[in-house]
Amino acid sequence: MIIKENIKVIAFDADDTLWENEIYFRDAEKKFSKLLTCYESEAKVLSELLHKEINNLSIYGYGVKSFMLSMIECALELSNSKLNGETISEILNIGKEMLGKKIVLIKDIEEVLKLLSKKYKLIVATKGDLLDQEKKLQNSGILKYFHHIEIMSEKKEDNYKKLLQHLNISPKHFLMIGNSLKSDVLPILKIGGQAIHIPFHTTWQFEEVDKNSINEKYLTIKKLKDLLAIL
Amino acid sequence: MIIKENIKVIAFDADDTLWENEIYFRDAEKKFSKLLTCYESEAKVLSELLHKEINNLSIYGYGVKSFMLSMIECALELSNSKLNGETISEILNIGKEMLGKKIVLIKDIEEVLKLLSKKYKLIVATKGDLLDQEKKLQNSGILKYFHHIEIMSEKKEDNYKKLLQHLNISPKHFLMIGNSLKSDVLPILKIGGQAIHIPFHTTWQFEEVDKNSINEKYLTIKKLKDLLAIL
Repeated sequence: MIIKENIKVIAFDADDTLWENEIYFRDAEKKFSKLLTCYESEAKVLSELLHKEINNLSIYGYGVKSFMLSMIECALELSNSKLNGETISEILNIGKEMLGKKIVLIKDIEEVLKLLSKKYKLIVATKGDLLDQEKKLQNSGILKYFHHIEIMSEKKEDNYKKLLQHLNISPKHFLMIGNSLKSDVLPILKIGGQAIHIPFHTTWQFEEVDKNSINEKYLTIKKLKDLLAIL
Repeated sequence: MIIKENIKVIAFDADDTLWENEIYFRDAEKKFSKLLTCYESEAKVLSELLHKEINNLSIYGYGVKSFMLSMIECALELSNSKLNGETISEILNIGKEMLGKKIVLIKDIEEVLKLLSKKYKLIVATKGDLLDQEKKLQNSGILKYFHHIEIMSEKKEDNYKKLLQHLNISPKHFLMIGNSLKSDVLPILKIGGQAIHIPFHTTWQFEEVDKNSINEKYLTIKKLKDLLAIL
């Protein structure tokens, strides 16, 4: 399924592929919904927040700052602008806490990168906030294994095409590894590259894909270390 | 002062070099300070906002979303958390309006880029928010003149060094053009590149530099079209 001989460059997604991330969002959402229980049920708060985030993606993009702004807007709407200043401060603190989280690497990542970097050119291809992702990489201790870092505003076919052009390699020599079918796997297959999916235990609802779009052209593995048997 | 023969790559700053930007911040600040006149004088609001923005730079970085979050934090502090929901909504609207502004190109930029792109490789080197800067470039109509777009979290010596490494060129072949002495000129001179300063009528206070750091190693011109006589 994976044609190992073709691979020259391996790109890793960052959030929930190199380090834990989504659990901090789940945790933040819980704290946020608790703040608003006087206005709505927790379930309603969460569904309204998701709706707000998706609506705001085209103007704010991905990342914690966008999430903070969406939480504030959502809270204003659900409270009918009756929200007090203390609650806004608590919402800001939820976001600031996320931005200050210590990096927790995914199990075995360092061993895997060390071995793979001897055989392939490794890069990071991630979406999100520029400064936040750069800081996470700098604090991760694994920056040294990567040849290039690409922080994208979106992970769609066109963005990947530009990346490959920029790296001056053909799609067939490119393997993408990540936890999101929608962002890391399907667009890569569409442009003729190879992909390996490593599901993470938590996926943001917006990253989930229609089961019909799941096909047999990519490989799914359970844990990072399985890469060593394949590559 | 500029050794034309050495130049291979010319990098343009974006905000206030390619298109107008700072005036929208000044305008937003005015609207913001007017919202808070019941708590403090406009001058005090503006100085507190600047203070908040600079304090937040290391966690939020540059750009409109960071500015929005700093406005909200500043308003909470100045009002002693007595701020009502309507005011927060108005602050969010100030930011959203900025994100939706139409691009106004700096005079003669298209003519200048057209001519220079025949002789040099042109790139954009800008700092700020990834999505916002990408959208501005896409809407600018001048993307076609540029070989490469670099959106940086900071414009310091190290960031420029990485850019040059990445472009595989030596500093002496690199000319940077921009409106900020602090971000576009001084760090470039320090790493051995050349720089041209085109002051814009409005500069963010944080971008202003100590007069002692101004030296004779760069060229200052009044308007973009002056480039054509030099290059």
